[in-house]
Amino acid sequence: MKFARYRENNSGLIKSAVLKEQALHEIEGDLFGGWTYTGPSVPLKDVTLLPPLEPRSVIGVGANYIAPGGTKPEQLPDIPVLFFKPLSSVIGTDEPIVIPAGIEEVKFESELAVVIGKAARHVSEQDALDYVFGYTIANDVTAPQFFHPNGHWMVGKSFDSFTPLGPYLETEINLDTVRVQAAHNGKLKQDSGLDLIILTVPFLISYLSRVMTLQPGDVILSGSPAGAEFMKAGDEIDCIIDEIGVLHNPVVVE
Amino acid sequence: MKFARYRENNSGLIKSAVLKEQALHEIEGDLFGGWTYTGPSVPLKDVTLLPPLEPRSVIGVGANYIAPGGTKPEQLPDIPVLFFKPLSSVIGTDEPIVIPAGIEEVKFESELAVVIGKAARHVSEQDALDYVFGYTIANDVTAPQFFHPNGHWMVGKSFDSFTPLGPYLETEINLDTVRVQAAHNGKLKQDSGLDLIILTVPFLISYLSRVMTLQPGDVILSGSPAGAEFMKAGDEIDCIIDEIGVLHNPVVVE
Repeated sequence: MKFARYRENNSGLIKSAVLKEQALHEIEGDLFGGWTYTGPSVPLKDVTLLPPLEPRSVIGVGANYIAPGGTKPEQLPDIPVLFFKPLSSVIGTDEPIVIPAGIEEVKFESELAVVIGKAARHVSEQDALDYVFGYTIANDVTAPQFFHPNGHWMVGKSFDSFTPLGPYLETEINLDTVRVQAAHNGKLKQDSGLDLIILTVPFLISYLSRVMTLQPGDVILSGSPAGAEFMKAGDEIDCIIDEIGVLHNPVVVE
Repeated sequence: MKFARYRENNSGLIKSAVLKEQALHEIEGDLFGGWTYTGPSVPLKDVTLLPPLEPRSVIGVGANYIAPGGTKPEQLPDIPVLFFKPLSSVIGTDEPIVIPAGIEEVKFESELAVVIGKAARHVSEQDALDYVFGYTIANDVTAPQFFHPNGHWMVGKSFDSFTPLGPYLETEINLDTVRVQAAHNGKLKQDSGLDLIILTVPFLISYLSRVMTLQPGDVILSGSPAGAEFMKAGDEIDCIIDEIGVLHNPVVVE
């Protein structure tokens, strides 16, 4: 099932819906608690899609894929490279990624984004996926120029528009077959299955749940495959997971 | 003016209020938009104080004070050491700081916490304080054991209960005379004016506003003076800013 959030072009109202064959069937209530259909539906073409949820928090993980043909580290790191991205950086599909004035190098990074559906504390890897509501696509836009020399990534990850999210929130996905892709001006640059992931989705949920109580609406960006590139004004970035859709963003300069 | 959030011990209801002479005068509405007194008041002794706001986000800054008698760096860093703390780590005064099982070394860090009151984007240092709603006290609890060797502080800063905040949100403070203090089991260990701060409050707001759009409810922890120490189960930590109050937390082990 695919959930969407959108602005109706006519009324300007913000609504949530379930997508069925190019039509959005309006719902109301709590995505994670209980929701019901309200009756009306609207064609996709009459709305502007927004990020499919307003995240409670956005958590990222660094360097989490090996390259195709590479070998995984024999031992998992004692402490994963984890970071938060601010809610102010979240935009929807088709919204422009804005490269801040004076920044030369900004990368796209296509990622499978995991949306937590219920409070998770001290959850085992075995049980971790029970706490997932669904999945969306993220572009973890990054300006490495603004990484602190001592390793803090906050500034380089946090500029406004640096976390495109969408287009839909899909509740059914087969993690064994899903491919995480990105196209840069139409050319495929990232394309990987989750077999190349180092810290798996269940591991990440379990590890994080032993640090902090994960809550409904927390979004975990599960890392980006090899092949991410720098982009420039005028470029078009498509982050693609077939089962979810295409997260498309043009790139502009501030 | 001092704002509080609290749970009424009788009804269990969560409310906001203005503190006047040991009584909480209930208000309703939006702290940052418009609010009004509802009429009733309740004695402080009949409530459990909560963090004085539900932050939208919590932003911290690393190593931001020189020691008394020290000299400030001649040049400010190109990129400050900034980090986010999760909302799940926020607790109120008198709630226990929980040292996670298996962690030996956990520090208290008393800090002046700046609460943003209106959207701030590309704000100058001169205008920065116009965007402040008020101030509270934070204890930026930290487990350096869980700092990633490459510099990422996320895990070590993010455990549940690692961001005590409170007791009140004070709108009027003189930053020139305020002292940031902490007492460890009653002994004063941190005690500093803002003259020893490296990146000033207006600088931090201005810098952050050029990265991300700051929003009402964003909380900036402005760094911790020299003197922070490790604590252990059974300890009592008081973070003190006279104009705001005492943020008191006992320490327990998970």
